[in-house]
Parts: sequence; structure tokens; C-alpha cells
Amino acid sequence: MRNPQLNRHGELTHLITTEGLPRDILTHILDTAQTFVPLADRDVKKVPLLRGKSVFNLFFENSTRTRTTFEIAAKRLSADVFNLNINVSSAAKGETLLDTIANLSAMQADLFVVRHEASGAPYLIAQHVAPHVHVVNAGDGRHAHPTQGLLDMYTIRHFKKDFANLTVAVVGDILHSRVARSNIHALTTLGVAEVRAVGPLTLLPSGLDQMGVRVFTDMKEGIKGADVIIMLRLQNERMGGALLPSSHEYFKHYGLTEEKLALAKSDCIVMHPGPMNRGVEIDSAVADGPHSVILNQVTFGIAVRMAVMSIVAGASA
Amino acid sequence: MRNPQLNRHGELTHLITTEGLPRDILTHILDTAQTFVPLADRDVKKVPLLRGKSVFNLFFENSTRTRTTFEIAAKRLSADVFNLNINVSSAAKGETLLDTIANLSAMQADLFVVRHEASGAPYLIAQHVAPHVHVVNAGDGRHAHPTQGLLDMYTIRHFKKDFANLTVAVVGDILHSRVARSNIHALTTLGVAEVRAVGPLTLLPSGLDQMGVRVFTDMKEGIKGADVIIMLRLQNERMGGALLPSSHEYFKHYGLTEEKLALAKSDCIVMHPGPMNRGVEIDSAVADGPHSVILNQVTFGIAVRMAVMSIVAGASA
Amino acid sequence: MRNPQLNRHGELTHLITTEGLPRDILTHILDTAQTFVPLADRDVKKVPLLRGKSVFNLFFENSTRTRTTFEIAAKRLSADVFNLNINVSSAAKGETLLDTIANLSAMQADLFVVRHEASGAPYLIAQHVAPHVHVVNAGDGRHAHPTQGLLDMYTIRHFKKDFANLTVAVVGDILHSRVARSNIHALTTLGVAEVRAVGPLTLLPSGLDQMGVRVFTDMKEGIKGADVIIMLRLQNERMGGALLPSSHEYFKHYGLTEEKLALAKSDCIVMHPGPMNRGVEIDSAVADGPHSVILNQVTFGIAVRMAVMSIVAGASA
Repeated sequence: MRNPQLNRHGELTHLITTEGLPRDILTHILDTAQTFVPLADRDVKKVPLLRGKSVFNLFFENSTRTRTTFEIAAKRLSADVFNLNINVSSAAKGETLLDTIANLSAMQADLFVVRHEASGAPYLIAQHVAPHVHVVNAGDGRHAHPTQGLLDMYTIRHFKKDFANLTVAVVGDILHSRVARSNIHALTTLGVAEVRAVGPLTLLPSGLDQMGVRVFTDMKEGIKGADVIIMLRLQNERMGGALLPSSHEYFKHYGLTEEKLALAKSDCIVMHPGPMNRGVEIDSAVADGPHSVILNQVTFGIAVRMAVMSIVAGASA
Repeated sequence: MRNPQLNRHGELTHLITTEGLPRDILTHILDTAQTFVPLADRDVKKVPLLRGKSVFNLFFENSTRTRTTFEIAAKRLSADVFNLNINVSSAAKGETLLDTIANLSAMQADLFVVRHEASGAPYLIAQHVAPHVHVVNAGDGRHAHPTQGLLDMYTIRHFKKDFANLTVAVVGDILHSRVARSNIHALTTLGVAEVRAVGPLTLLPSGLDQMGVRVFTDMKEGIKGADVIIMLRLQNERMGGALLPSSHEYFKHYGLTEEKLALAKSDCIVMHPGPMNRGVEIDSAVADGPHSVILNQVTFGIAVRMAVMSIVAGASA
Repeated sequence: MRNPQLNRHGELTHLITTEGLPRDILTHILDTAQTFVPLADRDVKKVPLLRGKSVFNLFFENSTRTRTTFEIAAKRLSADVFNLNINVSSAAKGETLLDTIANLSAMQADLFVVRHEASGAPYLIAQHVAPHVHVVNAGDGRHAHPTQGLLDMYTIRHFKKDFANLTVAVVGDILHSRVARSNIHALTTLGVAEVRAVGPLTLLPSGLDQMGVRVFTDMKEGIKGADVIIMLRLQNERMGGALLPSSHEYFKHYGLTEEKLALAKSDCIVMHPGPMNRGVEIDSAVADGPHSVILNQVTFGIAVRMAVMSIVAGASA
């Protein structure tokens, strides 16, 4: 079976997940993003690649920050952008997801950016849109957040040049994190020497071994000698329940402090997808310290999203 | 008294209702829309007709779908678009509708697209705006939804070429439907041979006879030999009350099934303004079947709204 | 200490408050606005001064009207505009204000328009943004609303030509009004002969004398011989509590009627920042009467906001 993200010429036509994407596609996205990074320093930060195209931000789950990054990226490509908070509109009128999509497609959309709380929704949509319409997943349930994964890869390549000899530790709530999943797939495809998952047992999914990931429940062991540490956001709603005792307890064991960071390589970079819980998963001294590349991730995220949108919109049907 | 939608040269300066609009105005809108339809296949789907103009979407009643169609149409005309959900803003501060309108006019608006739950609000606004400001009704109470009526006319003309010899059945909750009202006025003006209203007695308004409409309470009778069937959305809030027993019962008598559709002409087209209640007013086999032109309506709707906006904005004061 | 709104060349780089702004800066803003006013009569109401720049409307407090005026101004300068209602997004996720700002800055924002219920928030933000980012205060708590102050100055200069010999009365709830504060600072800096504050004792702050303002609790005394009357909006939430008995009582003593207005100069202009409470602080006969320049304020407000945004965005880092 063909990868549903690629057309019959093997070009990327939708971005749903980093899982199963060939290394040359990932590299092509990163290379394309690299051409957009210098735009930031130009007086007019725009290119006409998507001029006259219609990009729909379909956010079935609210996320101002992610929506904004896609809106910026689309406008810098000169597209027309339409923001739709679907939960407050058609869904309330009892229309099915596929009817909503069919309707928006009929308005001659070119690209849907989809955020949905249900895993698989962007894939379902991609299966049903007209051939000229492209779908980019902006986060679906616990499944995937591929543009976050790609911007993390961009950030790593920017600071470490090569993936081959790296040790990368992903730390925190791996179980519920679509970011972790998208990162792990991209890291293994790009040939990172050692990918580690670090967290309490209750927040580690099964099957990590089969993905080629080394599992650690002791954070000090897990980040020892790491070149890259990717901290995950701890959802507040996990706290105080069966999975985790308290944020104080969590910070003690899995919060990234300067003391723990000293165990990693001396030129280790620290990443976080945001928004941060300071004092829960990361100490302010680290978040604002010299190893942090957290704001670089945000900047590169615009260029990576421009790359993804221009690549899929340019793919033939 | 002059038609308040026309200026002293007889040009369309506001679009409030299809009622009383001369046939040549309706035809001019459809002809203009026809010039915009091919834009959809072009790489850059824009024309500069409203460049530098300010279009305000004033939605006093929430409707993401309708707002989006106007936003797309305005942006494809190169206008600047401002979306205002008024119920959550000035109205909450106790400002009167006319003060809100006076203020927005003073910001040099060119065109107001108005959706309001009160019948007559767009007309009231049109009476009070400065001469250079144009008003387009995007649905007011049970009164009118003229752009929906016009896009339905466009769809009928596209598939049937001529209005003269047609039998058109409008089916469902005619009583509460601004779509039905706008369609009936346009259909009779355009010279359709037979316009039928089909629905349960409780959902049929009085006065249909005087509008030149044949009334049917038996759906099979009502759609027999029809060239065009326009199904109406059944508002969920009507259900289970005094007017209607249940959606199951409604579907049995007035839901459009393949079996009932067989009574219409063999080349009959089926229309619906959306969003559909599948299994209530329309069966999925029909909605997705070969007679359905429901998604064509959506596509033509963009072109028709572009036509209306470009025509009124081009009318002299 | 340097004025935090000016860069080391003495140019305006942020607009936080009219307090302490030199007269030549105020005059430069008004002169620049004057060049934008004729745009309104042009067919294409846009200039390319901010083309390719990203303006973020950061509204931590909801205000559709003020947001819209900034959005219009930014789009007429050809900027890309991003609207963020922050209270429903990152803030809900527990992110700090400064992390939100750091993130948005990293997306290569050029200009933040900030509305916040906390006095001082825009100043805090201006202190923490990167050197190339500019901040414009769109209203913070009871502190300042400088663009409203400036558009009021523009309106006064437009109708009265010169500030020197004027008597200007600011009437109403001075205590809670950021508009009053911004106006008083601008009026005194621009050399208005007599600035008066008029209102009930409970709504007058202390310290007005030191600001060079004459205080009146009797409205008839306060507006006698005035060239300009600036009426303030009375927040409904003040009413019926300890500060004020009732809106009826308030209108009787401090509502501007034609009868009271007759005490001012015969060519007196009446201003109001909107939205008006007709029958509370102002009578409809006055609001819609020949002395009212309330809608002119709205129109000039667009030009003044264009001026402020183009000036700060043009300031070197």
C-alpha cells in the first residue's frame, strides 16, 4: 500500500505524520525551510509562492499559538487565510465532519490545516478531499504533531549539523504526547544514533523498544551524555490523579534543573515545544539559560511550516 | 416609492431581499457570477475589483459557514475583510445598533455584510448608512437570505439553462425559512412555470397562493414531475414540540429518499442550502447521489457573492 | 532616566502613554496623521509603508471596536495582521505573560498592539521585547489609552486650529478613565490654556491640581465658556453602588444636554470616546447635534493609529 501522504510520483501531498515518511522527504522539508529562514531579516518578509491560494485553518480544538504560527507561515507565502473554529459552528448544527469538509472543499480550498482532538481526523479528511486539496496535520489527539516534529529536527540539525552520532533524550509524558511520537519517528528515520525516552513508568507507552528507543525511568541515567534534550509539557490535568502524585514530586524527579543538565554533554541543547510549565518540567534557570534553544524552535517553526505548505501545495494531484 | 435596494439610476446599491428585485437585476447578478466561476481553475484565484476597499462582516448571529463564504468572496475580490462578532462586543456595552453602524461607517467602511436574528435589521442599517456604504443581507430572521436565493437561481440556470418551463418544488419548513422566501420571490420573478411549496400544514405559512405558489401537504404529489427539488433544513429546535412529532416521523413523510425522488423528472436536480440533517430531511443516498447538486451550490455561492459585492460596491452613490 | 518610549536618538519606538511625551513628538504624530486623512477619499485606501510587516493585536481584554480600528489602520498600511485573544489561549494554559511575549517575538513580530486590564502591562512588555519589536498601548487598566488621547488632540486641532487659547473640559468619571488621563497629559503638554476636570467628588481622583487641571464638581460652572467638552463614558458597573446613586440622578447633574451646552462657547465642540450611553452621560439631542464631532473622532482615529504605527515601526532599534 502506498503511503497516503505521497502522491503517485512519490511527492508529499499531505502531511499527516512523520511516521513512515522517507528520509529524503524529511530532508527536503528541512532544506526548503532553510531557504525561508533568511526572510526574517528582510524588510518585506513575504514570498509569492501561494499567492491567490486559500488556506483554511480548521481548528476543532482550540490552540491560538499553533493556529497563529500557521497563519503567519501562510501569509508569508502570500496565501489568503481563513480561520475556522469548527467546534462553535457547523459541528454544533449536527453536521458530520465529512460534510463540513466537503463543503469547505467546494469553496475551492487549496490547503486545510487541521487540529483535532481525535487521533486520525486529519487522515480521514485527507482521504476524502478532492485531489487538488492538501491537508496538513496541526496536531491530532495523541497521534501526531508532525510540523512540531519537523521544526525540532530543523533545530537539531541547525545546532548539531548532523544527526548520525547524536544521543537525543525525550523527557516527560511520552504516553500522552503527540510531539514525542512525531519526534521519535523523525529521529529514527534521520538516523540518530541513540533515541531515549525518559519518564515515570506510568507515562511511558509500551512498544518503545520496537521503535528503536532506549527507555529510562531514572532521569539522571536518561540524559547522561545527551547531545539534545527534548522536554515535554506536562498537562496539568494529569496531575494529582492516578498517574502522578504532584507537580512538586514530578519536578524533583523529572524537572530539568541545571544540576541534572550538568550530566549531559557540555554543549547539549535543551528544547521544549511550549507552552512551558516553569518549575514543573523545567527550571527557569535552564529555560532561560545558555543551553536553551526554545525560542529558536519557535522562529524555525515558521520557516518549517512555510516549507511544508509550499511543498504540499506544489505537489501535483 | 423607490425600491430601497436601488439607487436613483436603478442600480443595485444594497442587497436586502430578492423580493421586488426586477428580473434584469437578477439576471445581471447571475451573468456577473458566471464570469467569476472560471476563476476557480486559475492558479491565482483573485481579481482586483475591490482592492483597497473595506468589507465588514457584521455577524450579530453566529454563522461560521456563511461568514466564511463572504470572507472568501471578498478576499478573491482583493478587499480587506474585517470580521466582527457583534453580540460579544458593543452590544454587550449597551450601544444601540445604529450607533454601532455609525461608528463603523466612520471608519470608512465600503460594504457591510450583515447577519442578524431580527428580520429587517439589514434594511434598517441600509437606511442609515452614508451614501457610499453598501449593505448585503447575509440572512435576517425569517425574512430573507438573498445571496442563498441567488446562488440557488444560478445553480438552476447552470443545470437547466432556462427558467421558463420548469417545475420547482421547495420542500420542508417553509414557515421558518428565509431561504424558502428568497427562493420563491426569485423563482417567480425569473418566470418559472410552476413553483410549489411542500410541507406539513404546521410548517406552511399563509399567503403562498397570492405569491403564485402551489401548495402541497403530500410530498409525493408535491414533487411529482419536478425538474428541481429544493430541500430545506429542518431546525432541530422545531422537533418534539407542538409543530412536529419526531424527526423519524418527519423523515417518513417529508424526507427525500430515492423512492420518492423517482416520482420527479428523471433529470431532476436536488438542492439543499446546508448544513444537512442526513436521515431527517434527506437520505444520504440522495444527498450523495447522481441527482444531488448540493456541492455545486456551494461552489457557485462564492461566485454569486463576488458578483453581488462587486456590483453594489460599483454602484454610484 | 530616558523616557522608555523613545530610543537613544529620541525617536518614538513604543507608545505607552502620552505622559511625558515631548510636545514635538505629539505634534509629529498629528502631522503624520494629517497626511493619512485624505486616503479615505481615494479609491484604494492603502499605502505600502508596513508591507510584509507583522502586526499582532494582543487583546488580553476584549474590545472589538478598538481592535478593529487598529486592524483597519494596520491593513491600510499594508501590514499582515494577526488577532490574538490571549485570555482564551496561552493564559489558560498557565504560561506567563512574558513567555507568551517571548514566543510571539520569536515569530518575528514587528509590532504588538496591547490591550490589558492590568495597568502597566504594555510597559512591562515593551521592556522585554527584542529591540526590533515595537509596542503600542491600546488601553491598560485605568492607566492610559494614548491613541484615544492623540485622536482627541487631532480632532481638537482640526476644529480649533491652535491649542494655545483653548478651554477644554473633561467631564464625567475621571477617576476610572484611562481616556481622561491620556487626554489631560496631552492637553497640558500641547499648551492648552485651561484644562478642567468636571465630575462628582466620588469620581474625581486626587492630584489633579498638580497636573495643572482646574477641578469642578458643578457641571454648569465646569463647562462655562468651554471651547471643547470631552464627555467620558460612564461604566454601568459603577452605577447603583457606593459611588453613584442612579443613572437618572447622574444624567440630571452631569449629563450633557442642550440646555447645559448653551453655557459653553457658541462654537464649542463636543467629543466622546464611545460607546455612548445615551441618556446617561449625554443626551441624544447633543450627541447627534451640530456641536458633536463624535464621528469625526472615529474617522481621525484611523489616521492617528496609522501615524503611530508607521512612526514606531520606522524607528531604528
